[in-house]
Amino acid sequence: MTTIAIDAMGGDHGPGTILPGLEILLGARSDLSFRLYGDEAKVEAVIADLPRLKRASTVHHTDVAVAMDEKPSQALRSGRYKSSMWQAIEATKTHEADVAVSAGNTGALMAMATFCLRTMANIDRPAIGAIWPTLKGEAIVLDVGATIGADAVQLVDFAILGAAMARALFGKECPTVGLLNVGTEDIKGQEEVKEAGRILRERRLSTFHYSGFVEGTDIGQGVTDVVVTEGFAGNIALKTAEGTAKQLGSYLREAMQSSMMSKIGYLFARDAFRQLREKMDPARANGGVFLGLNGLVVKSHGGADAEAFSAAVALAADLAKGNLQHRIHDDLDRFHADRIPAPGDEDTEASSFARERSQTPEPSPKGQTGKKK
Amino acid sequence: MTTIAIDAMGGDHGPGTILPGLEILLGARSDLSFRLYGDEAKVEAVIADLPRLKRASTVHHTDVAVAMDEKPSQALRSGRYKSSMWQAIEATKTHEADVAVSAGNTGALMAMATFCLRTMANIDRPAIGAIWPTLKGEAIVLDVGATIGADAVQLVDFAILGAAMARALFGKECPTVGLLNVGTEDIKGQEEVKEAGRILRERRLSTFHYSGFVEGTDIGQGVTDVVVTEGFAGNIALKTAEGTAKQLGSYLREAMQSSMMSKIGYLFARDAFRQLREKMDPARANGGVFLGLNGLVVKSHGGADAEAFSAAVALAADLAKGNLQHRIHDDLDRFHADRIPAPGDEDTEASSFARERSQTPEPSPKGQTGKKK
Repeated sequence: MTTIAIDAMGGDHGPGTILPGLEILLGARSDLSFRLYGDEAKVEAVIADLPRLKRASTVHHTDVAVAMDEKPSQALRSGRYKSSMWQAIEATKTHEADVAVSAGNTGALMAMATFCLRTMANIDRPAIGAIWPTLKGEAIVLDVGATIGADAVQLVDFAILGAAMARALFGKECPTVGLLNVGTEDIKGQEEVKEAGRILRERRLSTFHYSGFVEGTDIGQGVTDVVVTEGFAGNIALKTAEGTAKQLGSYLREAMQSSMMSKIGYLFARDAFRQLREKMDPARANGGVFLGLNGLVVKSHGGADAEAFSAAVALAADLAKGNLQHRIHDDLDRFHADRIPAPGDEDTEASSFARERSQTPEPSPKGQTGKKK
Repeated sequence: MTTIAIDAMGGDHGPGTILPGLEILLGARSDLSFRLYGDEAKVEAVIADLPRLKRASTVHHTDVAVAMDEKPSQALRSGRYKSSMWQAIEATKTHEADVAVSAGNTGALMAMATFCLRTMANIDRPAIGAIWPTLKGEAIVLDVGATIGADAVQLVDFAILGAAMARALFGKECPTVGLLNVGTEDIKGQEEVKEAGRILRERRLSTFHYSGFVEGTDIGQGVTDVVVTEGFAGNIALKTAEGTAKQLGSYLREAMQSSMMSKIGYLFARDAFRQLREKMDPARANGGVFLGLNGLVVKSHGGADAEAFSAAVALAADLAKGNLQHRIHDDLDRFHADRIPAPGDEDTEASSFARERSQTPEPSPKGQTGKKK
């Protein structure tokens, strides 16, 4: 049984959308139980009509709900310890829940999660992992907005986090990992990316295969299972892909409406268009996974409808069942302790990595989305 | 009459594709003449069958052609002064041509153009501007790969360069300019971007309207005429959009082949699909514009066919006719000399900008795509 803590007050629509989303999911799987955090009266009013959820959940009253437009600092001041968001997160720390899901605002959620759970030992900064539909299935892209301007060591950490997520989710024991860059040659790109590439190439990691640099065009082609980048470029890549999909959807609708013949064609191909719409539906890939914290938190789109919210919760359940947190711990331990030095450079390699890390003891000075005031 | 210098040896296919591209363009416009740089024998062999081009061009023999896989440093060593690429670029310096076009490799072209033409006074680093099809028409996105890790002052320079390009190309006297960021709130994102936003907000520029931060989703929606970012994120955004378009094209083809009904639908809607394909055709937007140099250079995709190459040359011709270089000079002069201080802070504003600039006299230490060895 997987227990999931739910911020019932998060999102643009609140409990009226969140809870029906859980009811939908319970129709498909019976291995889940929920801890619902929110305004008891509002939650009970909705849950009265949701028999499966009523059986599978406990309600935990909270007085404070974090608003969607609240700044992270405000949210921390007003909602720390007592908001539905905080308590859902905290349930993963106390092991009352295996994972927490919120559709609340990203900045506040990341600030609270970082404050409440703290980063794992050996991890400087958290990352948000996104599921990216590709021609071959799905890839994981990280970071999509938690850490602006990651350095080389943080990028290496992200590779470990992303690979663990791919192993937990895709069932591949040795997923491929690429570093996002502006070209595939070693000489190109940001210094941080080149340096991270050098570290990943030189280190022998059994938990993933480092495939070198990948470009923006490669993500959707599914060239690697995991694509690693810092949060600024990652967020822009993700949103640019969303924008492009929306734009092409508009073009397609316009083209199908352009003549009598195209309208007739549309009628014949209606089923195919429906399949296409489902394939392009952003709800399918709903859920940003906060990685590198001492607790697992999944962020749903704020505007998600019940169906889309249920997809984010299903993702959270899969990650918990796939033992994501344990995998990450194991992988980090292996990376930092059990590594096998290459013949002839036992010391050089290990000490050079230790040196790199010791040069970056502080979080990136460039700031963190949603954490700074 | 606009004179265009052509690197006839550039691109994956060489003169056999480049020169027919020019012939196509001459069928549509009669205001162009060409200076063709390349192996005379090869050029003459192709041109013999292209009567319009034969009349409208002069051939200038060069012994050396830069290979598509040559590193910028190699290309400079072997091709400086004597390659078709170099001589086409140099023709814009000597005013024998108004603009140069090459389908040669980007790194070599940028290195040669920067070495030959040098950056304009008051411009630290060049940018590559790309035309981005949007729901409202077209936008200009820069930098898409010349300057990795631009600082705040360089981002402001890019805003001026991009706005001048929009004025030359779109005929808008006051285009809108957005800074690409991970959110639209002032507190979000890279320090460099926040600082550039502050400078653009505080300064009063008559040549464009600064619209604040834009996100990846906004580019394709045409929220602003110009989108400014540093070369790493810009290159990744551009290639991610290309990849997403390709991916959705695959989904669409697959959906239309999925059943007998969808195949029939496709036949009815064939014209609409043809229009859609044309709209999504990357050749339509072929041409990266090198901005901030003392000479105008346009880069065509290396793999461009004759039609796509002609689109890049048409873009070059439009920019030359739109007096892009003069506009940039004027705008930079206005920005650096003729600015009107806000009441009460005549000195503060001007001197703070001078201070910012004086702190960054050197090109970005983070390296430049295609310029470093």
